[in-house]
Amino acid sequence: MRAATASTWLGQPHHDGSARYVSTQRPRLGETVSVLLRVPVDHELTAVHVRTAPDAEQVFVKARLVCTTRTDAWWSASLVCHNPVTTYRFLLSGGPTRYAWLNGTGVHLRDVPDASDFRLVASEVPPPAWAEGSVVYQIFPDRFARSAQADRREVPDWAFPAAWDDPVDTRPGRIGHQLYGGDLDGIAERLDHLERLGVDVIYLTPFFPAGSNHRYDASSFSEVDPLLGGDAALRRLTSAAHERGMKVMGDFTTNHTGDRHEWFVTATGPGGRRAVERDFYIWEGDDYVAWLGVRSLPKLNHLNAELRRRIFQDRAGVVGKWLGPSGGLDGWRVDVANMTGRWRSTDVNHDVAREMRDAMGRWAPEALLVGEHTHDYTVDLPGDGWHGVMNYAGFCRPMWTWLRGETEDPNFLGAPVPIPLLDARAVVDTMRDFTSRVSWQSLVHSFNLVGSHDATRVRTLVGEDSRRVDAAAGLLLTLPSMPMLTYGDEIGMEGRFGEDGRRPMPWDDSCWDTRLHDVYRGLIAARKSSPALQHGGLRWVHASGDAIVFLREELTETALVHVSRAAHGPVCVDARHLPGVESGSAAYGPVPDIEAGTVTLRADGPGVRVWRWRPTDEGPRPTVRRRTG
Amino acid sequence: MRAATASTWLGQPHHDGSARYVSTQRPRLGETVSVLLRVPVDHELTAVHVRTAPDAEQVFVKARLVCTTRTDAWWSASLVCHNPVTTYRFLLSGGPTRYAWLNGTGVHLRDVPDASDFRLVASEVPPPAWAEGSVVYQIFPDRFARSAQADRREVPDWAFPAAWDDPVDTRPGRIGHQLYGGDLDGIAERLDHLERLGVDVIYLTPFFPAGSNHRYDASSFSEVDPLLGGDAALRRLTSAAHERGMKVMGDFTTNHTGDRHEWFVTATGPGGRRAVERDFYIWEGDDYVAWLGVRSLPKLNHLNAELRRRIFQDRAGVVGKWLGPSGGLDGWRVDVANMTGRWRSTDVNHDVAREMRDAMGRWAPEALLVGEHTHDYTVDLPGDGWHGVMNYAGFCRPMWTWLRGETEDPNFLGAPVPIPLLDARAVVDTMRDFTSRVSWQSLVHSFNLVGSHDATRVRTLVGEDSRRVDAAAGLLLTLPSMPMLTYGDEIGMEGRFGEDGRRPMPWDDSCWDTRLHDVYRGLIAARKSSPALQHGGLRWVHASGDAIVFLREELTETALVHVSRAAHGPVCVDARHLPGVESGSAAYGPVPDIEAGTVTLRADGPGVRVWRWRPTDEGPRPTVRRRTG
Repeated sequence: MRAATASTWLGQPHHDGSARYVSTQRPRLGETVSVLLRVPVDHELTAVHVRTAPDAEQVFVKARLVCTTRTDAWWSASLVCHNPVTTYRFLLSGGPTRYAWLNGTGVHLRDVPDASDFRLVASEVPPPAWAEGSVVYQIFPDRFARSAQADRREVPDWAFPAAWDDPVDTRPGRIGHQLYGGDLDGIAERLDHLERLGVDVIYLTPFFPAGSNHRYDASSFSEVDPLLGGDAALRRLTSAAHERGMKVMGDFTTNHTGDRHEWFVTATGPGGRRAVERDFYIWEGDDYVAWLGVRSLPKLNHLNAELRRRIFQDRAGVVGKWLGPSGGLDGWRVDVANMTGRWRSTDVNHDVAREMRDAMGRWAPEALLVGEHTHDYTVDLPGDGWHGVMNYAGFCRPMWTWLRGETEDPNFLGAPVPIPLLDARAVVDTMRDFTSRVSWQSLVHSFNLVGSHDATRVRTLVGEDSRRVDAAAGLLLTLPSMPMLTYGDEIGMEGRFGEDGRRPMPWDDSCWDTRLHDVYRGLIAARKSSPALQHGGLRWVHASGDAIVFLREELTETALVHVSRAAHGPVCVDARHLPGVESGSAAYGPVPDIEAGTVTLRADGPGVRVWRWRPTDEGPRPTVRRRTG
Repeated sequence: MRAATASTWLGQPHHDGSARYVSTQRPRLGETVSVLLRVPVDHELTAVHVRTAPDAEQVFVKARLVCTTRTDAWWSASLVCHNPVTTYRFLLSGGPTRYAWLNGTGVHLRDVPDASDFRLVASEVPPPAWAEGSVVYQIFPDRFARSAQADRREVPDWAFPAAWDDPVDTRPGRIGHQLYGGDLDGIAERLDHLERLGVDVIYLTPFFPAGSNHRYDASSFSEVDPLLGGDAALRRLTSAAHERGMKVMGDFTTNHTGDRHEWFVTATGPGGRRAVERDFYIWEGDDYVAWLGVRSLPKLNHLNAELRRRIFQDRAGVVGKWLGPSGGLDGWRVDVANMTGRWRSTDVNHDVAREMRDAMGRWAPEALLVGEHTHDYTVDLPGDGWHGVMNYAGFCRPMWTWLRGETEDPNFLGAPVPIPLLDARAVVDTMRDFTSRVSWQSLVHSFNLVGSHDATRVRTLVGEDSRRVDAAAGLLLTLPSMPMLTYGDEIGMEGRFGEDGRRPMPWDDSCWDTRLHDVYRGLIAARKSSPALQHGGLRWVHASGDAIVFLREELTETALVHVSRAAHGPVCVDARHLPGVESGSAAYGPVPDIEAGTVTLRADGPGVRVWRWRPTDEGPRPTVRRRTG
């Protein structure tokens, strides 16, 4: 095979919103922030300006050349966070491009819209310090583990009980109603597994009482489903998790309740028309609006002040009651966040997101807020609402287009055509298109995911060769984000979109894919030992065909990540761009060839390799110049 | 020179939001709208879906193949305008691309964000019927024409009087204060000139009393500046214009007033701290916030309810008083619309835009509302606020990058580096990037412009060869928009950015560029005689180097536009894509070569050519299928 030379990305000016380039990750309104730009030394720019837009009027700030290393000229400029969101981009004059903009999708030789400008978010309620870099483990409570107490519980009217080894029943009437009886104490009993795996955060899909096994149709937000062990079991689980240094997040449907919910029962019962709860829902004549028309899921009316009080504003309201030391939770994932507060001519979506964030800031400033969004989340994530989102559009879907099996036919959440199979370059371009449209802060507090309880299992997605899961897990655990696994991904659980993707976790490890388990453990361990993988910036190096190569860069460490979908010929990277690479060591997988100033990356099949070193050509720290006198 | 074959654009599936493809340009909320897609017959798609996102949840609608002509397969789908803005894009399955999205920037073989999705806007206050296709003529009242009455007026304290033939004084202390004494009766006396030119709308920069010649520092919104002839002169001008079938628009600064404004004088005078007007402005301690720190322009506080009442809600408020039969005006242009309602953590910009539109809908539903925006306007133009904007970013700037003179050094509104000189492809890509992000309705109600009172004159911009103005005017008057000329552009007036761009209009036509005058008159006449140029959709054909070619398409007419920046070799277009072209006629400029199935476009220098014909391969009308029974 012919050797491919890595793309010109490495030879281009670079900035990202990480701590390598920005003086603070948590600016306050009015604060002056310093931003750095690195430009390859041979570019010889004549000037650099930073264009920002206070109150939406464009303004140019002149950057200073502060330092020249063997590889890069470093420019610095100071920006004032005049608004909650400060957008900025670099205007490069002179050099090979003469007139060029640098924004989150790279260098552009003509004017482009502002959507991919970099962003600083100044918030009174910044994301919690524990979140960045953490690995999240999603648990669907009915299907993870069943404690002995479960045997003593009565089967509710809506449920068809199943034994743990029973196959999932995907017949129309049974979907959502098969009850395996997993519970919160079952989870608490299995924390050893999570600790060995190395995850930091447990995210539980809903634990409120409901009329289905998924519990997205809550009948109350005031108690934990007794079928899961009730409030006491949640306290036991969160305490046990906290003792091991793990966080626990819940799942709340701001968009709707179940039709058995106490509010809805009051609103539709005798005297319901005059009940305060009536207006908690949206009525069209005598009929209520329901999520996608599903009658069991009446949609909430966020224009109602009493509803907002009960959900957001009261300390003992839904959001506050379950958070912090008294409630036990460390954050909320919000279901159907994209539809919340939107109906016909009403759109208070951003207000809901901000009100929830503000409430959390009051009651539990150390809690995380992540919204579900299954398509383009970027306009819904300006930075002052949800801290982050489920990153389907900017990670999961493009990753699928690279690693889906040839014969598999995965659709995505019921879309009418399958996900296509594409080249690595298309994958990276798509990832950049989406992730460049949100702040770095929002990106690193979003959940990258290879699937979820709402998607085909990654092991099923990739087809025959399980090493393609290594590649998927490799991307998941090395790109900037809070990587999220779904329970069982780590042992190679299979399943198609829908109920089949929510099989019970097998605890007989003779049916585990222990090789995959080692892969996940190894990658999580590599991530946790690497400041670059946890907090570093991101520079793309190469994306073509079967190979994706990128750098994660932090002041004290550079990590080179090479992910392959199949065997491929050598990809050559000029070692001048990687100062210090000769002194590196493998963080995961085999060692690259470094010879005669070239780093050569090869693959004999799907997989992931991480190499790391201390950069020897560091450049300046991003610091704000203080005026003297 | 080698012949260039036109790009593959013509061989691609196409949709735009024009009446050719959408069943209504003014849908109501809840209305079902039909959208058409044309696909070259040889593509043989297996399915087409339209993806939309009611309440921000993605939904797919299956399209039907409704008609196949000799050139195209036509697909149709019905969408419900569930929200005020309905976004949509096409998913093309099978055929040469297998998996492709079509949005406003064309065909994409991978997932892309939603920003360039097509848009339907359902509004209770749609733009007025007279606006689409109209040509706008901007007048800076002090500099257009002076009536005899002007001699009898006293010179105010802020002004340095000038004779009409005096050069513009660009010394710092004089900028803004040189008074030539142009007035509204002067304009009324020159309507013959405008009628001969063929313009439809007069847009007046501010006519309120102020302390400068530009009058963006109003001292009152209650009367017309007596220096311009007062209220009676405005009535005379609007009546005279209306008699000739012309409309008249005013210019209102929602962002700020002058520091001599009656509200500000009250707010800062004795007892001002207790005056209701105090809170009309934004205070930081004892100091007021001013536009870009210019002390004479205190910024308005749109959080104040009484201010909003006086501006928007009262029939006799600023917005209502001057509109309709009683006020005389047919619309407002809004100054600094981008900054309005924005300050630090406050952002009520969209609310202000919507409130102004709603007020206009109540008081003068036939009035137009256009906001100034000097950079990326797209997020500020969702469709339910300003009807349109001043399209600097999506027309003026890219046009400048193509037609600026080699030796000229035009900056743009004080930017620190000059506008670059780029290839036609970069120009078209930039135009598409911006214009695809707003609805067709917003695009065709925005003012395309080659300059303004705030920019270098186009004649100065292009350098030596005045035929480059033909090319600029050619683009201006043939692309979808409300084209705006600045007074004097049509006679080749020169001037650099700033005061120099606002020289007095010379009425001695011996110093006019009569060739250019004929060009403008010819192009405006061509536009007015062509339904395609006024209302047609837009299909790009070719953009490379010195040539830009596109189609405007309407059911009964196709117009082919060829604009050249310099002499260039033949550009060949396959005539199969242009059914009926053989029967065409020149609407402007020389006739293209049509031979052996090829249309060949050549240029011997800068210029514009328009060819039009009745399409012989029409395809279906976009109509909504009514259910029967």
